[in-house]
This record gives sequence, C-alpha cells and structure tokens, in this order.
Amino acid sequence: MNFEAIYHRPRGNWAYAYDTKTLHIRLRSKKDDLTEVILIHGDKYAWERTVSKTVMRKLPSDELFDYWQAEAQPSMRRMKYAFELRSEYGILFYEEKGFREDEPIDPHKMFDFPYLSPIDVLTPPDWVKEAVFYQIFPERFANGDPSNDPEGTEPWGGEPTPSNFFGGDLQGIIDHLDHLQELGVNAIYFNPLFQATTNHKYDTLDYKKVDAHFGDNKLFKQLVDACHERGIKVMLDAVFNHSGKEFEPFKDVQKNGKDSKYADWFRVMEWPIGLKDGLPTYETFAFEPRMPKLNTEHPEVKEYLLDVARYWIEETGIDGWRLDVANEVDMQFWREFRNTVKSANPDVYILGELFHDSLPWLGGDQFDAVMNYPFTDLVVDFAGKGIIDASRFAGKIAELLASYPDQANEVAFNLLGSHDTERLLTLCGGSKERMKLATLLQFVFPGAPCVYYGDEIGLDGDRDPGCRKCMEWDQDKQDRELFRHFQGLIKIRKEHRALRSGTLNFLHANEGESLLVLERSDEMDHYLIAVNPSDTAASIVLGVTHSNWQEMLSGAELKAAGGKLSLELEPFGYALLRAN
Amino acid sequence: MNFEAIYHRPRGNWAYAYDTKTLHIRLRSKKDDLTEVILIHGDKYAWERTVSKTVMRKLPSDELFDYWQAEAQPSMRRMKYAFELRSEYGILFYEEKGFREDEPIDPHKMFDFPYLSPIDVLTPPDWVKEAVFYQIFPERFANGDPSNDPEGTEPWGGEPTPSNFFGGDLQGIIDHLDHLQELGVNAIYFNPLFQATTNHKYDTLDYKKVDAHFGDNKLFKQLVDACHERGIKVMLDAVFNHSGKEFEPFKDVQKNGKDSKYADWFRVMEWPIGLKDGLPTYETFAFEPRMPKLNTEHPEVKEYLLDVARYWIEETGIDGWRLDVANEVDMQFWREFRNTVKSANPDVYILGELFHDSLPWLGGDQFDAVMNYPFTDLVVDFAGKGIIDASRFAGKIAELLASYPDQANEVAFNLLGSHDTERLLTLCGGSKERMKLATLLQFVFPGAPCVYYGDEIGLDGDRDPGCRKCMEWDQDKQDRELFRHFQGLIKIRKEHRALRSGTLNFLHANEGESLLVLERSDEMDHYLIAVNPSDTAASIVLGVTHSNWQEMLSGAELKAAGGKLSLELEPFGYALLRAN
Repeated sequence: MNFEAIYHRPRGNWAYAYDTKTLHIRLRSKKDDLTEVILIHGDKYAWERTVSKTVMRKLPSDELFDYWQAEAQPSMRRMKYAFELRSEYGILFYEEKGFREDEPIDPHKMFDFPYLSPIDVLTPPDWVKEAVFYQIFPERFANGDPSNDPEGTEPWGGEPTPSNFFGGDLQGIIDHLDHLQELGVNAIYFNPLFQATTNHKYDTLDYKKVDAHFGDNKLFKQLVDACHERGIKVMLDAVFNHSGKEFEPFKDVQKNGKDSKYADWFRVMEWPIGLKDGLPTYETFAFEPRMPKLNTEHPEVKEYLLDVARYWIEETGIDGWRLDVANEVDMQFWREFRNTVKSANPDVYILGELFHDSLPWLGGDQFDAVMNYPFTDLVVDFAGKGIIDASRFAGKIAELLASYPDQANEVAFNLLGSHDTERLLTLCGGSKERMKLATLLQFVFPGAPCVYYGDEIGLDGDRDPGCRKCMEWDQDKQDRELFRHFQGLIKIRKEHRALRSGTLNFLHANEGESLLVLERSDEMDHYLIAVNPSDTAASIVLGVTHSNWQEMLSGAELKAAGGKLSLELEPFGYALLRAN
Repeated sequence: MNFEAIYHRPRGNWAYAYDTKTLHIRLRSKKDDLTEVILIHGDKYAWERTVSKTVMRKLPSDELFDYWQAEAQPSMRRMKYAFELRSEYGILFYEEKGFREDEPIDPHKMFDFPYLSPIDVLTPPDWVKEAVFYQIFPERFANGDPSNDPEGTEPWGGEPTPSNFFGGDLQGIIDHLDHLQELGVNAIYFNPLFQATTNHKYDTLDYKKVDAHFGDNKLFKQLVDACHERGIKVMLDAVFNHSGKEFEPFKDVQKNGKDSKYADWFRVMEWPIGLKDGLPTYETFAFEPRMPKLNTEHPEVKEYLLDVARYWIEETGIDGWRLDVANEVDMQFWREFRNTVKSANPDVYILGELFHDSLPWLGGDQFDAVMNYPFTDLVVDFAGKGIIDASRFAGKIAELLASYPDQANEVAFNLLGSHDTERLLTLCGGSKERMKLATLLQFVFPGAPCVYYGDEIGLDGDRDPGCRKCMEWDQDKQDRELFRHFQGLIKIRKEHRALRSGTLNFLHANEGESLLVLERSDEMDHYLIAVNPSDTAASIVLGVTHSNWQEMLSGAELKAAGGKLSLELEPFGYALLRAN
C-alpha cells in the first residue's frame, strides 16, 4: 500500500456539508492501489451504539490518484470517522492519528466533523443548476438607439480596436431578446454596464449609474423585467477590485493628494500619486495606472461598495453578481459582500473570477462558484486543439472535480471563451467540427455552460480586440447550422436532468488516443457521450446494460447486442446517446 | 522521485501570509526523496523582470514526509510560483498544472498567491508569544471569603466529588497572587466564573454576572486590576456552545414551549422538550440534558453572546477568551465574534478548544490559536508514560508543526493536563522525574505553556473529579523542590527568546530509543535540549559548532572538544544547554 499517496484532511473538498443534512467524505489513494475503501463512522458521544460502515464509491481517477467518496447523514449532525483501506495485500485502517492495523475504536483518535452548522453550508441558488448563460459585451451586441452613441461611433461591423466604439446599447439587447429565447439560453452575463470611459467599462466612474451610451437605470430595469418575463436571469459584473481613473474619489485624491478625504480609499505607496520610473506610485490592477486599486479594507469603501451590491439587487432585481479580479480583493470584504447580497436576495448567484485553484473561496462564506477556466483550458486543448489525449483530459477533469465540493461543481461557470480570450472558433483553428465537439463536452458537463455572444452564429476573433467584434445580425451572414447545433445542445441539456446533475464516469480515455467516451447517469436515465477529436475515424465496442439507444442530436436509433454496443465515429464525429 | 508524496495547495499551512509583508510557502515530499527544493517566484504581471529563486529550508521530518519552507516578501504583495525539485535522479519542476521537465515560464500555469490583504492575515497578539499561563479552577483554588460559601460547603482539602463544593472564590485568588508571581507566570486562564449551578460552572445561568459564590463583578474587576498591576494577563472561559438548564431563556422555553419567545434560541427537535427514550428532544452538549445547545445562528442569540464578549472586555479589561467546545459552534458566529472582540481590543487572545486538527479555524477569520491537545498527548506518551519512542515523538511533532501556520504555532496553548484530564503527575504514573522531563519539553516548545494549578507543588489526581482537588496551601505539604523546577523553567523561558521563537530541529530521535535531543536557535542564541525518559542511563556525542556550553538549570559548564560535545544523561536525566 502506498502510504504517501493516501490523503484526507477534514473540510474543503475532503469532508464537507453538501446540504444541511448530508456530509460528503472523500479520500485519495494511489491509482489502482486500493480495491475498496470503507468509511467507519458514528457519533463521538455514543460511538459504540452508533458506529456503522459505508462502502465508498470510486470517483473518476486522475493520472496519479484514485478518489473515493461516501455520503452520510448523522442524526445529531456530528460525525467521527476512520477509513478501512482494502488492497490485494490486506487491510489497513486510517484515522487522524495515522495508519493502524487493527480496527479503530477510540473516536478521540479518528477524524472529526464536529458539527454540521446549517449556516456554514455552501448553498448556491438552485436555478444555476438549470442555467445556460449567454455572455454579452454590451458595446458590441446591438445598437438599438443611435441617439446615445458616443462621439466618433463607427459603423456597425467595423474592425474593433482597443478604444473604438460601435454604439451597442441596452435598447439593442432588448430588441434582440427573441434571438436569445430562440437559442434557448435562460441567463445573461453582462460585461460591465456602469458609467466608464472605455468601451469595455472595466474602469468604473460611477457604480450606481448605467453608462449613458448604453441607456439609463430605468431602461436597464426594463431590460431586467423583459428578461424575467422570458424566464431569463440577469447577472452583472462587479468591478470592485479597482475603479477607473475618473471615479470621483480618485479624482479628489489626484487633486488634493494626502489631504483628500478619500486618500485612504486607495493604496498609495508614495505621495504625490503619479508615475515613477514608469510605474504607478499607487496600487493598481496589474500595473495599469488607469485602474487604481480600491482599499476594500476601509470601512467607507466597504460601505460604498456593499451599498452598490444591494442597490442593483433591490432596485432592478438582478439575479447574479460576477466578481471581477475576485482573488485580489480581501476575503473579509467578500464575506460581508455575501451577507449583504444574500440578505437582499438569497437566490442571487455569486460568481468569482478566479483563474486558479479556488477552494479557499468556496467554503460557504464567500462565493457560490468560480469561472471554470481550468475546464476551459482542458476542453480547448483536448477537443479544440487536439494537443492533449483523452487520458490526460479525463485525468485532469477528474482532478478538477475532486478538488471542489459537489455543490460548487454543480454551479461552476463553464465558459469556453470570453472577452478575455480568443473566440472559441479561433481557438479551434477555425474548425467548426472541433468547435462542435468542444461545445458538446461543455453541455454535458456539471456546471452552467456559457455561450459567448456570437459564438453560436460563427463569429471568430483573436484576443482583445478581435474577440470583441460586433454581433452579426444579418441572418444570411450567420452560420445558422451552427446556431441549430447550439440550440439542440441547449434544449437537450435543459430537458435531461442527468446531463446536469448525474454521476459522471469516463468509460474510455486511453493514453495516446483521441477517442473519449463518458457516461452520465442518475436513478432515472443513462447517457453515453462519445467524441472523436481527430481526423481519423474511430470505432469502439462498449459493454452496456441497456439494449436500445437513441442518438439525441440526429435522432438515430442504435441497438446493443449481447451487452455490446458498437460505435463508429467519423473524423471529428460525436454521439450523444440516451438509453431508452 | 515519488510523485504521489509531493503536496502543495495554496492557503492553509501551505501558502499563507505570516505578516502583512511576508508569505510562507511550504512543500511536502517523500522522506529522504529530494535533496533540495527551490522556490521560483515572481510577479504575475511582470514575470520576466521579477522572477527570482529562493532555496527552501528543510523543516523537521515526520515518519513519511519531508517538509520544506521558504519566505518571500513580494513588493506588490502578489506572487506566482513554482517549485524546482532536485533529487539524486535529476531535476523536475512542479507547478499548479502538474509536473514538468523543463523550467516553468508561464505564470498562468503556476501556483498563485493573488494578493496579500493585510486584513486577512492571522495576527495573534504579541504578548501571547511571551506568555506562561496558569490555569485556575476557581472553586478549588482558595477560599478567601467564607461568607459567600455555598450551602453545604465542605472543609478545604476534602475529597472532591462531581457535585460538592469547597468554597473557592475570587478573594482567594486575589490573596494568592503572590504565589503566581513567585512562580513567574504572567497569564491566568480561568475556568468559568459566571453564575451557574454546578461547581465547574459550565452550565451558565447568567453570562453577565460573576457567580455569587465566587464574588461579584466588582470584585472580579479588582482581581483583573490586581493581575494587571503584576503584569499578569487574564483569560476567561466563554461557554457559548450551550447554556445551563437554568438560563432564563431556556427556563422560558421549558415553561412556554413552542410559544416561548426564546423557542428559536435553542435547537428543539421535537416538542414538547424533555427526554424521550432517555435522550433529550433538543440538541445539547453531547447528550447532556442540563446543557441545551444554543442556536448561535439566531440573530438575537448572536447579539446576546457578542454583547457578553464585548462586556467583559470593556467593563473589566480581560485579555483573552477561551472558547469552550469551539468546534461545535458555527463559523459565521466565530467570525463575528472575532470582529467584535478585536474591535473592542485587538490584543485580546482568542483561543479555541479543539481536540482535532484545527486548520479551518486558524485562517485569520476566527481564532488566534487552539488548545494544543495533540502536543499534550505526544509529550505525555513520550516523556510521561514512555509508550512511544523518540522517533515517533519527533515525527508526530514535525507533522503537527507543519500542519499550521507558524504564527499559530507561536501562540498555541500548550497544556499537559487540565480539569478535563488526569493530572500530569498521575499521567506520569506518579513519577516526578518523568513529570520534570515532560515540563521541560513543554517549556522549550513553540507556543505558550500552561501550568494547571497545583501541578507545580505536586498535586496528583485522576480524571474529574480527582483532578479538581483543592489547592494545597500548607508549604510543608507542598513539593517545594518541584515548585523550584517550574520556577526555573519559567524564568529561563521568559529570559531566552530563542526558546520561544527560535528554529526547532531534532538532532537525535532514533527508532527504539528514548533519548531525544533537539535544538532551538535564532540569530543570537543556540540551545540544546536533551531528555532521557528511560530508566537506563544514556550517552551521546553531538557534533556542535560552539565550544562552551552551560547547563541552565544546574549552572554546570560543559566543553566541546574538536567539535564534539559528550553528554551523559542519568536515567530520567535531562539537560538544557546554552552555547556561550
């Protein structure tokens, strides 16, 4: 038995409350080292009369490790536990105090989940589990009201630059809600809408005012209402890490220096503020002098921003806040932010922008979920670019899923491209076939998929500014076949619960191969998803328990014979099969 | 290289802010597998011009793993990093995305400490690093005022039972502060003082009133002032997990049932409240019907208890709160508790009672430290009972130290016995020699040692009620030789910084052996501590860089010859050597 590989440490992703009654316990072991793991658990104050054993389920494995999970619902909400590790070589036990050969009997030495406090449980809003997002970069979606265009607005569809304007606005979005509804999405993520000087609006000038070139607060309220009428939720972008240079308090600091009453709203390293050796003398986002970092530890700044958070929920009824550069803001601030937001409306989704391992923010006190960039990278590398094999993809996905609590995975924000990356089609080297494989994986995965505006009709584009080009509204210039592909995937996902919340398993993911087969299933349904991101055809025979299968995108029927299902996939082919 | 053993995950004990400028980064590897580990680090927004390398220091190893640590002070408070792992077989790199053979160059794939927010840093009060605590169980320390004795008070020094009284009170403590000062302690931890029905007072009846048999609030204020005049800090016991059965709100619930305005202050599972099949129908501490669990999620309960926390700080100037059954109370409550306490006085020490791994409570948002029971068990098993060898002791201590941030270790509450355990002398099987070895280890260890009242003059006693016997004030019946041993250790610890905060290393800790040698050192001083918890003599030759050494308890001088220091230890012998 490989002792060094065994890992368990209570809390985080290893022992957590999934809901107010249920604990999830996970253990890690060296890949293929253990044959079975059993959770021994009971009440610490009445061990002998409460002890019981639960066989742990094996989760998908990564390249080095197996992961095991068990659920338990201790009646007094507290649980001591130990593990029984079974391998070919025998049985060993593992408790907090270490490994032992004989069965643990002293709860004092075991692992402890001392008490499941309902208030500490990470409880994301239920609606996100059913959500399909659509991301809108407002300046580039549609120009519905030329009267509010900024000076120098260029004709719709021109070449985007880092600083030009095309006149996109809220009226344009309202005018095109039919498009979203036809596509089937039920949530919108808006890039910033508040008053700012740039076209991307990440340099906020006034946090309580919709940018005048987009419309006004009243119009935004109409937009939210119109979305809600169509069953579409609305999420805004909270840029609280930094303001813009034209933010009144920062202007005051620029003018009055140290004596400004806002001097402590920012993090000034050296007065006077300005540039020194080309670098700002105050903290900023990155080294960008136009984006001064807000001192979110300051009570007034906190009060100001929390008021903003509450304002848009209460005044306009928004359903989510996406938090820009979330990991550079202090955790105390986010804890108060969560309290503020959830008291205004417990159903508001709090989504952090984090590029890295985000467990510390997913403990129930801060975010509901994070932008799932590790997922993005893996899907793009595997299906979009073909630079990793099925084994690596499956392993890294397994590692990712095991690294968070299940309820965070269920509401992860699964994007494949955004205003900050190349567009998906471009990431796929212009291959629509690869793009379809990537989106198929996105739509059968735990977490809410997000479609970046225009991807569904074939927009391409390099990194900013290329990925921010104007939406194409001429249907003749739209890729309607691609649109139907998205439409189909969205419909299927929304109609089949197991594709959203079923158990995920990899059935075929070999080293050196492109062919990947995974299954998703729950008590009701069973699905097989096969993708072949390669320019050669692939075939496989899968052992299955059901005889009749239907390919859900084409409607084709397949039959298994003698428990064997033969699948033939063309180059870049795929299949989404449902057991009938 | 053993890949499965390599472990690092940002935050917790692996990557944390030690203070508002300094990050500590740790890595785990298989024992004796790596020869060197180098931290590669830089600013994510300017990697190429900021990247640098720091050789990691090896911390003490446990039975399976080596631990490595490096410190860094990134000028912009943010750091991306990766590890260079060197072994006999070659060099490998480790970053967030996994292992790689070539040097990492893409910060996007590395580990990330996104921003060091000062407000999120765990910053325990400085005074605790210098503190030596003395724990007083008030009913049994001294009876200074017979007029407030409870009915049926028995003569001082009688046999303790779970329910009898001996009349100990605050006046008795005030009268005996000379004893504490002579001993040298500079902090007192009081078991509960508030109005309650039992002799241990863990069944609080009124959280804002000193128990009438102990005195009153005014007298307590005098006691605190008298302590402060002598440089002694005062810590109280906060029993917030549960109240007593006679707590007014619970009495109201007993009387008015569901209709009580306090019905939600507790966690009632089934009305009417009472016993059913011998078990309470409401949540309690353990299954104890006299200790109903408080619903600390309820805003009114929270407000009430936070007011209590503030009250004793503001009205009497106490310096610490020890939190009873801390791990069964919700974390949201403790976060607000910390904010409340630290705004009243940032120097108040917040100490959680936790018996298990306590990392989740030591993230800067809840406690400053925890009661170090794992340390207790190890010292007792090694020095007190002789049931584990030096290798196991050193390994488990190494694991313990590596499992928390350094600043939590520096203020851990290191007790060897308490009102909840057998007394130390009894744990040591009555062997004063073993007890001296155990206390020596306690006093040269990171964290604040605590002496349980009476241990210093030779009290013994089994678990409750035996460990709660009356303090012996007749000097002829006190073990004054033992008292001088404690006095000496306390003085030495207080005078020598490296014994409190120096680097700790094990120099000799072999399997199957009792002899243990450890060193503590800082830039100024160097100490060697040797203990021989065995009934046979031991000798050892140590390689040292200094020639002249002094044994600090006896004053004896030792000389090293040719870089070799010979140590002879009698059965149960010890030495505390300082390099001159």
